[in-house]
Amino acid sequence: MVKQSQISINTERRSQWVDITHDIRRIISQSGIKNGICNVASLHTTAGLTVNENADPDVGLDFFDKLSRLVPREPAFRHMEGNSDSHIKAALVGLSVQVPVTDCDLLLGTWQSIYFCEFDGPRERSVTVTLIGE
Amino acid sequence: MVKQSQISINTERRSQWVDITHDIRRIISQSGIKNGICNVASLHTTAGLTVNENADPDVGLDFFDKLSRLVPREPAFRHMEGNSDSHIKAALVGLSVQVPVTDCDLLLGTWQSIYFCEFDGPRERSVTVTLIGE
Amino acid sequence: MVKQSQISINTERRSQWVDITHDIRRIISQSGIKNGICNVASLHTTAGLTVNENADPDVGLDFFDKLSRLVPREPAFRHMEGNSDSHIKAALVGLSVQVPVTDCDLLLGTWQSIYFCEFDGPRERSVTVTLIGE
Repeated sequence: MVKQSQISINTERRSQWVDITHDIRRIISQSGIKNGICNVASLHTTAGLTVNENADPDVGLDFFDKLSRLVPREPAFRHMEGNSDSHIKAALVGLSVQVPVTDCDLLLGTWQSIYFCEFDGPRERSVTVTLIGE
Repeated sequence: MVKQSQISINTERRSQWVDITHDIRRIISQSGIKNGICNVASLHTTAGLTVNENADPDVGLDFFDKLSRLVPREPAFRHMEGNSDSHIKAALVGLSVQVPVTDCDLLLGTWQSIYFCEFDGPRERSVTVTLIGE
Repeated sequence: MVKQSQISINTERRSQWVDITHDIRRIISQSGIKNGICNVASLHTTAGLTVNENADPDVGLDFFDKLSRLVPREPAFRHMEGNSDSHIKAALVGLSVQVPVTDCDLLLGTWQSIYFCEFDGPRERSVTVTLIGE
């Protein structure tokens, strides 16, 4: 069985992550799929997805701070839109995550949440959620 | 339903990406799978896969230029083949991508293409395409 | 068909990778699944998964050495547990891998193995293995 839906996200800053775990859990609970895999994919090239800690918000601040120092905006970049740093950060973090589904719920560790990673906001963004299973 | 195939790629430089979206679309259209997930996986350890912008080729130039400055060839590397930078870049970018399939086609954003990322060419390379769905 | 299991891993150092290919192959051979996809996912936020070279152990040494220089522990990090470097490294390498399954076995390249990547050990760790296929 395959079920697909979309989630809309309005980001508020150039760089931020947004916890979308709750939205995905709701989609799974209404899908009729008990066990399988959940793919969450960014439809953009300057925003990605990751799984990371949900307890201390400083983890997210450190993550974006470090990424901005590793891959800063540089005058040397040739891309005319001036946001090559965002494209590179999205490619390094990854454009999708895959999380197991067990007993009609995401199978995540205690401290794990699924984060949409904005690297060139603020913008209106969309991610697709594809569930495959039985 | 599961369908698997391979794509052969001949790269021409040490570092480059190759847009393989069209090849994957053709495989999907002939597969009989309408909705599901498409996994594209590198069979190598010095070449990966990503999804990124297909409009301005400068995005790819900036991507490889920046990666080569973040992870240059270094005399300190111990690996006897001298290409540890390629292994590290492949691990950071990732060895596979997963893209949703909807209505017998890849579900990609307007500016997204699937790129094979060569980090130690030129070589003959292979990727596998695995479709799961209904 | 969907089959899920867990693998326990005891890591011995702060940073190391552990080849879990053999454990995953055994799970696949007992699953009854012939063709499909194998998802291997970390249940932690300071440990990830990758596919990399299994021939020369120096590749792993270079990989962790370089990552520790790219993302060192820094006094500037705010996260109270002091391991933001581990969270960032896990996010860059990725929290899961997806490998095709063909003829009741992993479809890997000649030099590829699946590695659990510890970035904040030593610890007891768990990964989930989810097989989807027919």
